[in-house]
Amino acid sequence: VSFLDVLARKRDGLVNTAEDMVAICQGAANESVSDYQLTAWLMAAFLNGLNDDETANLTLAMARSGEILDLSGLPKPWLDKHSTGGVGDKTTIVLLPLLAACGLTVVKMSGRGLGITGGTIDKLSSIAGMRLDLTPEEMKEQAGRIGLALTGQTPRLAPADGRLYALRDVTGTVASLPLIVSSILSKKMAGGAEFVCLDVKCGRGAFMRTLPEATALARALESTGERVGLEVTATVTDMDQPFGRTIGNALEVKEAIRVLKGEQSRFADGCIFFAKKSLRLAGLDHSDEVVRDALEGGHALAKAKEWISSQGGDLVVFETEEWQVAPHQADVTAKATGWIADVDAGRVGEIALGLGAGRRRKTDEIDPSVGLEILVKVGDQVVAGEPIARVHARDDVSLDFARGALKGAVGISPVSVDARPFVLADPKV
Amino acid sequence: VSFLDVLARKRDGLVNTAEDMVAICQGAANESVSDYQLTAWLMAAFLNGLNDDETANLTLAMARSGEILDLSGLPKPWLDKHSTGGVGDKTTIVLLPLLAACGLTVVKMSGRGLGITGGTIDKLSSIAGMRLDLTPEEMKEQAGRIGLALTGQTPRLAPADGRLYALRDVTGTVASLPLIVSSILSKKMAGGAEFVCLDVKCGRGAFMRTLPEATALARALESTGERVGLEVTATVTDMDQPFGRTIGNALEVKEAIRVLKGEQSRFADGCIFFAKKSLRLAGLDHSDEVVRDALEGGHALAKAKEWISSQGGDLVVFETEEWQVAPHQADVTAKATGWIADVDAGRVGEIALGLGAGRRRKTDEIDPSVGLEILVKVGDQVVAGEPIARVHARDDVSLDFARGALKGAVGISPVSVDARPFVLADPKV
Repeated sequence: VSFLDVLARKRDGLVNTAEDMVAICQGAANESVSDYQLTAWLMAAFLNGLNDDETANLTLAMARSGEILDLSGLPKPWLDKHSTGGVGDKTTIVLLPLLAACGLTVVKMSGRGLGITGGTIDKLSSIAGMRLDLTPEEMKEQAGRIGLALTGQTPRLAPADGRLYALRDVTGTVASLPLIVSSILSKKMAGGAEFVCLDVKCGRGAFMRTLPEATALARALESTGERVGLEVTATVTDMDQPFGRTIGNALEVKEAIRVLKGEQSRFADGCIFFAKKSLRLAGLDHSDEVVRDALEGGHALAKAKEWISSQGGDLVVFETEEWQVAPHQADVTAKATGWIADVDAGRVGEIALGLGAGRRRKTDEIDPSVGLEILVKVGDQVVAGEPIARVHARDDVSLDFARGALKGAVGISPVSVDARPFVLADPKV
Repeated sequence: VSFLDVLARKRDGLVNTAEDMVAICQGAANESVSDYQLTAWLMAAFLNGLNDDETANLTLAMARSGEILDLSGLPKPWLDKHSTGGVGDKTTIVLLPLLAACGLTVVKMSGRGLGITGGTIDKLSSIAGMRLDLTPEEMKEQAGRIGLALTGQTPRLAPADGRLYALRDVTGTVASLPLIVSSILSKKMAGGAEFVCLDVKCGRGAFMRTLPEATALARALESTGERVGLEVTATVTDMDQPFGRTIGNALEVKEAIRVLKGEQSRFADGCIFFAKKSLRLAGLDHSDEVVRDALEGGHALAKAKEWISSQGGDLVVFETEEWQVAPHQADVTAKATGWIADVDAGRVGEIALGLGAGRRRKTDEIDPSVGLEILVKVGDQVVAGEPIARVHARDDVSLDFARGALKGAVGISPVSVDARPFVLADPKV
């Protein structure tokens, strides 16, 4: 297949064949196709779209552009969980040990964060000694031994996705439904999963701002999953207010550990929702009792310790919260008495970025200690002067900046406000 | 201007500003914008188009991406002539000295050929010693001294066009009207011309196959010319049969010299047509007498000798045709008696390519000696067994191949056929 022909077909609104997709992905993986030809194709695909067959073929070709992790020999079912990313979304850190404690084998490749949506790899990196560069062999060995493994993107799995994603990022071609779908699912296939539980975040703190967009992405993920032989369930959840009460890397790990230790919260409920959903997808007992027992009986916590320890992380994080503590901290107080009407996840994410909790550019350094605690959620009642948030900063300048900005991100209503539902749409249920 | 914003505007079907075009062209010229971002923009421009303002702004920005040849001090009017390229199109070699002999100053940057359409630079390269890498200073000095200068593309003039064109070539984004228009006109502006006489070739031997496409290109060239302050006239001419009786580099130079020496032909008439059109555009006497006198009085021939000599070319080419002679030659004869109904310029061009007269890829080597003479044109009467073409080849294998293929490229009708007009559309007249 000549790459100019592949390009011309997409440019002319025709269909790229399965062979075309292989040419693109092999070319991307072995670098026989140049960046400038790949980006021309990406822009043509962005503008002319890909149909369902093309999306499935691209997914398969990306998954097969490197090794495919062979989990055979490991206890079934094999599941992967993925979120499209949101402000304060630390679900993976709770869900992985929780699901492993419920009998699933969970192997996951995770990304680094960019912009206001943090990445699980960045969060876990705040734990001293934590290794997030496992080889495929190490992932399989660990998953066999303790039921779960998590690593950063490795060039050995779905390398075409790695290259295409980097090029999309610098050419304004990220926001394409078929390109997003194939990127997500190809990594899941390469990781060897049979079942994939997806959380499509929707709102100001997420990539998809509106419910129709997010629902379309959820549907496309499910239907492409079916075409490529993956059992996929995708749920659209709220990301208009932050998920959980912390935003910032070490802060989010600490919150996840508190949930594993039994803390109740809207975030804990979200984790339980996805645990049940995952168990149901995998055909296991998905009753409330099973999940609550794994959490409240300490099984999930024990699994989390095995996990962090197996990947070299310092277990002191389970003993105390006195690690990666930001030097400057101060509260933000409610300016009025009433009900919390709005916590703008987008603005909160920007403030956390400004503190140094995330990266605007790929080369930015992250400060693991900084971030925000949002002590209220939509619907909560507050009294003027009461703390509604806490800023963790590396210096006074950013501390003051964040405190001022946070006041604008939280709206207080004189009349009561209903809390928004966490689950916005659940196409398959 | 952030290049991602420039890209996003074109991706989203919005308008790229004049500043955007400057960012693209400066970025292309000084290599501060990467190939992969430029090709993403090119694909977006190809698919979403550029409006008249954008096309004009891109043209200006490309022209200003390098030096602009300052012809001040040279006799006015300053004219450039350009053809969009066709099979056997050697008009430039006749027209430049002819116009200089009529009092115009002609400075031209010319391209190399690719595919079936040959390039003037390749044709003139068949003359021993001919220099086609003049610096801008040398071009101006020579044009001041003898009234004309021609060179290959130099990185000092319109460098953004050079880079963008190369990228279009490898990403299937050549066939975009606004990109073609800005590429052509930016080079003319950079060359310092006031007046530009354009020949838009149309038919099977040209880039534009149909009259509506070619007319649209001619109109776009004229209207963009007006917006950027160039006096442009664009004529659509026939390229369904080859232009002139030779195809191949040295063969075409020899034919051009014969016309400069007074040979009459359809090709000679075409040269005279464009000479008159150019003189008229420049506001000079454009009567038949003036042009015929320049040709028949030997002034154009004398000017051609000055030109070739000034650029280091061996003047023996004016004395004899015994230079760059292909070792194998043979005739093709008419298979029937009747009238020539068709000479397929596309197929003839392909056969010449197969003989080695052109390059399929930029890196291919050209053999200057090989090519074809087509002894007939549409409308001519022929008798079976009479020679209708002559093949000039480097070996017997390609000779036989070309002879067989040529029979299929020429159609003979039992009833008389009208010759096609040379001028198909002349929007400005």
